[in-house]
Amino acid sequence: MLIVMRHGATDAEVQRVVAVIEEMGYRAHPMPGSQRTAVGLVGNDGRVDASRLEGLPGVQEVIQVTKPYKQVSREWKADSTVVQLGGGVTIGGTDVAVIAGPCSVETERQILEAAHQVKEAGAVILRGGAWKPRTSPYAFQGLGRPGLKLLAKAREETGLLICTEAMDPEGLGYVAEVADIIQIGARNMQNFSLLKVAGRAKKPVLLKRGMSATVEELLLSAEYVLAEGNREVILCERGIRGFDPSTRNVFDLTAIPVVHKLSHLPIIADPSHGTGLRDKVIPMARAAVAAGADGIMVEVHPSPDKALSDGAQSLFPDQFAQLMREVKVIAEVIGRRVAEPASVGA
Amino acid sequence: MLIVMRHGATDAEVQRVVAVIEEMGYRAHPMPGSQRTAVGLVGNDGRVDASRLEGLPGVQEVIQVTKPYKQVSREWKADSTVVQLGGGVTIGGTDVAVIAGPCSVETERQILEAAHQVKEAGAVILRGGAWKPRTSPYAFQGLGRPGLKLLAKAREETGLLICTEAMDPEGLGYVAEVADIIQIGARNMQNFSLLKVAGRAKKPVLLKRGMSATVEELLLSAEYVLAEGNREVILCERGIRGFDPSTRNVFDLTAIPVVHKLSHLPIIADPSHGTGLRDKVIPMARAAVAAGADGIMVEVHPSPDKALSDGAQSLFPDQFAQLMREVKVIAEVIGRRVAEPASVGA
Amino acid sequence: MLIVMRHGATDAEVQRVVAVIEEMGYRAHPMPGSQRTAVGLVGNDGRVDASRLEGLPGVQEVIQVTKPYKQVSREWKADSTVVQLGGGVTIGGTDVAVIAGPCSVETERQILEAAHQVKEAGAVILRGGAWKPRTSPYAFQGLGRPGLKLLAKAREETGLLICTEAMDPEGLGYVAEVADIIQIGARNMQNFSLLKVAGRAKKPVLLKRGMSATVEELLLSAEYVLAEGNREVILCERGIRGFDPSTRNVFDLTAIPVVHKLSHLPIIADPSHGTGLRDKVIPMARAAVAAGADGIMVEVHPSPDKALSDGAQSLFPDQFAQLMREVKVIAEVIGRRVAEPASVGA
Amino acid sequence: MLIVMRHGATDAEVQRVVAVIEEMGYRAHPMPGSQRTAVGLVGNDGRVDASRLEGLPGVQEVIQVTKPYKQVSREWKADSTVVQLGGGVTIGGTDVAVIAGPCSVETERQILEAAHQVKEAGAVILRGGAWKPRTSPYAFQGLGRPGLKLLAKAREETGLLICTEAMDPEGLGYVAEVADIIQIGARNMQNFSLLKVAGRAKKPVLLKRGMSATVEELLLSAEYVLAEGNREVILCERGIRGFDPSTRNVFDLTAIPVVHKLSHLPIIADPSHGTGLRDKVIPMARAAVAAGADGIMVEVHPSPDKALSDGAQSLFPDQFAQLMREVKVIAEVIGRRVAEPASVGA
Repeated sequence: MLIVMRHGATDAEVQRVVAVIEEMGYRAHPMPGSQRTAVGLVGNDGRVDASRLEGLPGVQEVIQVTKPYKQVSREWKADSTVVQLGGGVTIGGTDVAVIAGPCSVETERQILEAAHQVKEAGAVILRGGAWKPRTSPYAFQGLGRPGLKLLAKAREETGLLICTEAMDPEGLGYVAEVADIIQIGARNMQNFSLLKVAGRAKKPVLLKRGMSATVEELLLSAEYVLAEGNREVILCERGIRGFDPSTRNVFDLTAIPVVHKLSHLPIIADPSHGTGLRDKVIPMARAAVAAGADGIMVEVHPSPDKALSDGAQSLFPDQFAQLMREVKVIAEVIGRRVAEPASVGA
Repeated sequence: MLIVMRHGATDAEVQRVVAVIEEMGYRAHPMPGSQRTAVGLVGNDGRVDASRLEGLPGVQEVIQVTKPYKQVSREWKADSTVVQLGGGVTIGGTDVAVIAGPCSVETERQILEAAHQVKEAGAVILRGGAWKPRTSPYAFQGLGRPGLKLLAKAREETGLLICTEAMDPEGLGYVAEVADIIQIGARNMQNFSLLKVAGRAKKPVLLKRGMSATVEELLLSAEYVLAEGNREVILCERGIRGFDPSTRNVFDLTAIPVVHKLSHLPIIADPSHGTGLRDKVIPMARAAVAAGADGIMVEVHPSPDKALSDGAQSLFPDQFAQLMREVKVIAEVIGRRVAEPASVGA
Repeated sequence: MLIVMRHGATDAEVQRVVAVIEEMGYRAHPMPGSQRTAVGLVGNDGRVDASRLEGLPGVQEVIQVTKPYKQVSREWKADSTVVQLGGGVTIGGTDVAVIAGPCSVETERQILEAAHQVKEAGAVILRGGAWKPRTSPYAFQGLGRPGLKLLAKAREETGLLICTEAMDPEGLGYVAEVADIIQIGARNMQNFSLLKVAGRAKKPVLLKRGMSATVEELLLSAEYVLAEGNREVILCERGIRGFDPSTRNVFDLTAIPVVHKLSHLPIIADPSHGTGLRDKVIPMARAAVAAGADGIMVEVHPSPDKALSDGAQSLFPDQFAQLMREVKVIAEVIGRRVAEPASVGA
Repeated sequence: MLIVMRHGATDAEVQRVVAVIEEMGYRAHPMPGSQRTAVGLVGNDGRVDASRLEGLPGVQEVIQVTKPYKQVSREWKADSTVVQLGGGVTIGGTDVAVIAGPCSVETERQILEAAHQVKEAGAVILRGGAWKPRTSPYAFQGLGRPGLKLLAKAREETGLLICTEAMDPEGLGYVAEVADIIQIGARNMQNFSLLKVAGRAKKPVLLKRGMSATVEELLLSAEYVLAEGNREVILCERGIRGFDPSTRNVFDLTAIPVVHKLSHLPIIADPSHGTGLRDKVIPMARAAVAAGADGIMVEVHPSPDKALSDGAQSLFPDQFAQLMREVKVIAEVIGRRVAEPASVGA
């Protein structure tokens, strides 16, 4: 950490900074310059809380050098984490995994139909919400536990793995019993109580980036899960808040290579929420794979115009089939391979 | 709701839109124009989920006219809500309430000292976190339940009311037993499970605006609380995410008159988190009162340079006393009055 | 246009709105609803300035239905514009054009070396700034007119076409004499005086999206150029401002399919400015082509660590050659073809 | 400047960084740490262009310590700049100057009426655009030079000083002949060619913050003007781009104390563009003065519902008179005084 003093800061002010640093248990390294003095803080094994120093008289700025996260970083673990799911499906290795299905589980018929359709097109994991975080309390909130049972039935029929969202500690217990991947949604990315519970679950966690979260904050939220002992975390870029109403979100695909450099954790991309518009999902799913995503998550509904939620961004089944054909070739261009459902058996 | 068709949409496409609207239980009103046709959806008593319509062929855009919230709106209740706290303290009427205290409860001595200091300067409510949402799992997470006990003791000694944060359903139960106001933090503004629990609590709720929440989303989160039966909701502007690193957040004071026009709920402002910089807190607290805030929430610490969290944005007690003198006069300029601790007794 | 009245607006207020609409020369269509009245404004052949109506008593909101641009829209011209450059190079058709070269023209040796290197790897257009918009007045501002001469020499030697930026009306005259494409930079996207001059030039214009411009504003700026008679406009996504310091900009690739739907103009992408980081340029260039970009613009420098500007985001020549190999295959996956320099001759 | 090496960077990589620093003419200071090495760059008298260093192998991050601007900084000049306008009006001292008038000059009758109204209420400077930067080429673009003559006539009749915008080098010449303050609009904040011309003009310059400009970028644009010799620069916060459609812009009032700390230049605030909504202008103008603004700029129109531009955010004359009464008292609370037109004579 570097504490930059104001031009003209007094010796007493510099000494006060040095004293506080030493009181905090670190070593201080004053470096007088032609324009100002900076004081290096050394001896820290991790991020130091700067707030005590920032407010001291004569301090202009505190610059963090050490990253605030540990176990999620590539410096902690150089090899990429490969999350092992059932049936030979992995996320984070050479394979590009495709997760697809409706926004919400609505009826048995709907979810089974969707499951068969996405499997046929080549997906290996089925998505579908039993609990739905909705901006309005008057919107459809999901079927709850009966929805989980329908997902289990879909898995039984198709061999697809299941990824579904938990919204609170109680629900996470139910999800962990049934699902193959526990999803933490964007709005809960900094619900630290929930992250801690997820960190004690025995299932892989899919952690979606919050709407206004920096990559660093996303990694720190993942750190909460790892710090509790669960190392099977998959990150997900799903669009961030922007100023342009022409799309629902800004799909920040650069986050993929950024995460790959900073962390060993896999990262997938969700072009359905990332754009919010059906006819943008196919080009942006292709772009995500070209950018190096370890998987994609796509909303597909047997009848999008009858969907109870997110109908406008859900693909028709035949659109999804087209998308699968395109991303398979793009994956090969960059030396990867779209995971095949054959490997899951059914 | 207005469904705008593309230039050149076919009659069949317009008819499909009409049919879906009727299938949804509303009436459709096609309006052919010189350049395109628009179809009005009428007969709705509240917001309609547009996603089924947005994706239909020939549809260019769906424009919402009805606001998606109800009970929080001024159209639902024209008179401003005045939240009655104990001891004659109110938020939402003529009085401007000042909430002050440290970021976290750290020790008995620290919280009692802070309580006496802010009371003496004129605050009526004590803030202080027993549970702290921290970006990093390695940062100080709060004292938990023992912190609540210290807050109760501070109330006993000073007569100040208590406002403290709940981070999960379990903690909310404990907070509701002790606090006078249950705070829901910015990161949990869309933690809908927590909002529902808060809606069933018997204490007023202070709901902070999320870092990337629109005012409409803030109101919808408040609607979750009201929909469960708790009408005592106080909103709080605390800064939103922006692109300029020169402040921690962008303090969006215009949200105050915006909320006052759309909703009957009171709104206060938190210049400490809103700016993140101690020397910006005083001018921005003055600005908040000048903009019409129903209260302000300010971090004050007996020794900011020893604080375990948010030291750099906490005021020294004498700075807080100066701030109180200034906001009192500004409140009077606009026909209001800073609530006085005398009315709380002690 | 739809003028939404407040709940409880009086008849007199509605009549005032109707009167103002008629005074403006349009027809008014009051539509009383169960909750509020809306007044449709019809008879407009283009966007109506809403500001007079927005402020009238009883008006809650004015909703624009008509797009504010005309000649750039797909409704005005359904077929995609194919900009014809010299030597058979086109932008906007099946070909994907690659523009490459250094940020600035620095020396004869540097620009010639760069030109040969990018040509060899497969670029068809050379970029290089003679005038550079720099945030600081103390940064290298470009060689000016001598830089243009060096670009002309590079074209002579390699057959590459030239794309270079104009920063003011006077400079645009010089650029138009020499360059094959006149670039208007992101900071000048709403320099309307410059856009009008570009609209009277006889060369194609490359218009970069401003850092905080919506797609609608980008199209309106292009409309300025078309309105003056120049229809050869190429748009360029180059990253927008965001809140995350982990990249220089947020590279908004979804703008590509968004523009393709709204407008007939071609759009290319600049992953060098879009990300600001050399090791992100290759994956994001691939992503841009996968998303459907009509071209890419990439900074390449013979010795990036000696560059006078943008060294950190410039590719080494061999990295650029690798990128060319990858984008060629991706272009084919989606039925396109990277334009070949052979067609330019040399 | 601090060059932070990656964990595990080789000695050769560190040596390469040292060599490049020395090649650039500075001294290098390697500091090996327990986790990584950082290399300090010293001996620089101003900002160093980091791009050559950022891309070197083994470099993780380059951290700027020195601010990139000079003459605008408080370190360069500790005393606040007080811009002297005619007739004893100043901006930047104790007085709070009020600039008011219509968005555009429309007719002689309109501008004279507006001038008399704002003078009577207490403004000292008249605003009004002769050239208007409009997003759409089809919107009213201003009267041009005849508009300047009408402004001169209004000054003659009322004694008000004149502030009006220049959009290009040619227009700036005309504006400089007539106006007392040359305004550079938000969209031209990084039109560096225009800034250089303004820096050679003999009149004070009002520089508006760009919609997505950081405070640092605003100061750097002011630096362009000072670097050419014109030290009479007034900054203006006028709202930045945000994600919430409930206001036209996010009015970032914290920029006022931020600028006051970093720079000696005065800063005023424009609540009309800052909010875009008439009924938000009064509370936010009060807030701006409470936050310490050196002046406010407010749109006032004799008949806002007939305005050719910005009608919805223009105050009615009687609203402006009320605002003046309120801000006068608030200015006094913080030891300032609203400048009085009496001092201008008429």
